[in-house]
Amino acid sequence: MKLLNETIKKIEKINYSLGKKTQRKLDNLTKPQGSLGRLEGLAKQLVEITRKEEVPLKNKVIFTMVGDHGVVEEGVSAFPKEVTPQMVYNFLRGGAAISVLAKHGGIEVIVVDMGIASEIDNSKFNSQNFKNKKVNFGTKNITKGPAMSKDEAVKSIESGIEVFEEIYKKGIDIVGAGDMGIGNTTPSSAIVSVITGKSAEEVTGRGTGIDNEALSGKIAVIKKAISVNKPDANDAIDILAKVGGFEIGGLAGVILAACSRRIPIVVDGFISTAAALIAYKLEPKIKDYLIAAHCSMEKGHKAMLEYMRLKPLMDLEMRLGEGTGAALSMNIIEASVKILTQMATFESASVSRRMEE
Amino acid sequence: MKLLNETIKKIEKINYSLGKKTQRKLDNLTKPQGSLGRLEGLAKQLVEITRKEEVPLKNKVIFTMVGDHGVVEEGVSAFPKEVTPQMVYNFLRGGAAISVLAKHGGIEVIVVDMGIASEIDNSKFNSQNFKNKKVNFGTKNITKGPAMSKDEAVKSIESGIEVFEEIYKKGIDIVGAGDMGIGNTTPSSAIVSVITGKSAEEVTGRGTGIDNEALSGKIAVIKKAISVNKPDANDAIDILAKVGGFEIGGLAGVILAACSRRIPIVVDGFISTAAALIAYKLEPKIKDYLIAAHCSMEKGHKAMLEYMRLKPLMDLEMRLGEGTGAALSMNIIEASVKILTQMATFESASVSRRMEE
Repeated sequence: MKLLNETIKKIEKINYSLGKKTQRKLDNLTKPQGSLGRLEGLAKQLVEITRKEEVPLKNKVIFTMVGDHGVVEEGVSAFPKEVTPQMVYNFLRGGAAISVLAKHGGIEVIVVDMGIASEIDNSKFNSQNFKNKKVNFGTKNITKGPAMSKDEAVKSIESGIEVFEEIYKKGIDIVGAGDMGIGNTTPSSAIVSVITGKSAEEVTGRGTGIDNEALSGKIAVIKKAISVNKPDANDAIDILAKVGGFEIGGLAGVILAACSRRIPIVVDGFISTAAALIAYKLEPKIKDYLIAAHCSMEKGHKAMLEYMRLKPLMDLEMRLGEGTGAALSMNIIEASVKILTQMATFESASVSRRMEE
Repeated sequence: MKLLNETIKKIEKINYSLGKKTQRKLDNLTKPQGSLGRLEGLAKQLVEITRKEEVPLKNKVIFTMVGDHGVVEEGVSAFPKEVTPQMVYNFLRGGAAISVLAKHGGIEVIVVDMGIASEIDNSKFNSQNFKNKKVNFGTKNITKGPAMSKDEAVKSIESGIEVFEEIYKKGIDIVGAGDMGIGNTTPSSAIVSVITGKSAEEVTGRGTGIDNEALSGKIAVIKKAISVNKPDANDAIDILAKVGGFEIGGLAGVILAACSRRIPIVVDGFISTAAALIAYKLEPKIKDYLIAAHCSMEKGHKAMLEYMRLKPLMDLEMRLGEGTGAALSMNIIEASVKILTQMATFESASVSRRMEE
């Protein structure tokens, strides 16, 4: 608990007065005021977070955190749980969607075993980007009791902080939160239901693609998990322990650590936003460090974003996770910084200003 | 008229059966089917357009076409008309938003004088990317008569075809349509009003940022231009001549030429979509070659997109034009092709498929 508390203590408010200064700078560039819309808002937010007028975005890192879920034995997913480790190998061999999109964006992907139900065999890939932070071999079935102990919940968050700090030493300018874990939309729906007070029906979607019958079953599973465990809506550690997942805890840790280092965080989809919700419950100041990459097709994502008052950058009807939305949106975020630092002013380009109305 | 007719004659339907084949390929990649949403749709569309299974996107070109508008003497813009040539110099010296975003995306910008009201001084910049295709020194005031003659309307479209063909010889794999011209939201609103049948109130916005009083005046100007000129809603050349602009005609020409060469077209914002509407009225098959980059804040843009049943990729609350939205979206389009060509299949990555439900 010590590392977690120390990390939270280091998180400061972002610097709003630097934001105002940045907006004045933006208003002096050769374009009608505000005409670059959200690009301007992003540029401003990045300066507010980093306190740097020329925001560096050289080292882009996405943490794709992986865990298994005991609740899959209730039939909540369309894919079998052996897909979790299989996809880890796919990530590290470059064949997954996140591998392709990260390479496209010049982004490094760190794959973290937070709690896969089997051992990952290092001989099966040739990459330094795998980290073993396994808290346990998958969570327990949340319809029968808590997913993990409170100690494990804290350990999952602190492991996220640790792995962020390890990579931060080599350089991180912007971080993305991604996930993988067969079954992990179920704990995420449970988390958003508990925190926002919305019903399981309102926040439960089809995950990787279950049919109507399986969806009804999944909703019943989430309701049962909440009624069996009775998580305390105001205690993030309690929620994580009772209905969460190891990769969700790990991502909450990454988010808290990034805030403590004034690093902007790109939240990907449903599962990483659930992790952001946990971090937000622990320290509401983190909200201003978050950039919501996209709106997932997964039903409960919108409820999470609205709860934290985040507006996603894109809506490409994606529902894959892994950090894929975060990877795509980093290009837009970089563009916003270049607008701020590379455009000419009305004076430097000898362009006339608007007429007095 | 000969070049225009020949170009239109060359435009074929896109190849839907290749699209089906591409979807089968996408469904075999290591992700739940359809989970990459619009990225999958884009990849499919690009194959359908180009008829190539490995779509090349090396040579990315945006045509930023520029013209002046006689109607500015009616007070429809917040900026004075000398800004039009001033921005041309800014484009060619690298200080404008499109310059910065195109450089960010590895995109070449070709700036075309389609009808600026003054001569552009070549000695004021050091760039090969300027083309002089001036049809006339600005359009005439459309509240008093047609913007241009029918011959000039045809010439503006054919000049667009010519300039596309000039650059196409050096290589174009994907093209973006961008615009600049103080006052050009006024002819664009007139075009969308005539073609969609919506009122001027419904399709007229604040352009670079006029106040309520100026907006009322702008709406009155558009109504007057339509009642004075009575453009024939089914005759694109008539509409372009009576209430159009030289840069709008030029962009319609670029779009038609690109379709005739099976090159995907990224339409930027309000003005370039007005150009796409003109091209669409000339040849409805062009619609399937278009990718709508973003939804502009300019009010009438949505009406245009809906009329052609185009769904924009992004909504970043932008309203600048120049091709800025097109530049940003090209990164997403490139990502879609990489997904199709670089991801592993379930077989190659030894990942289990979904369970039978």
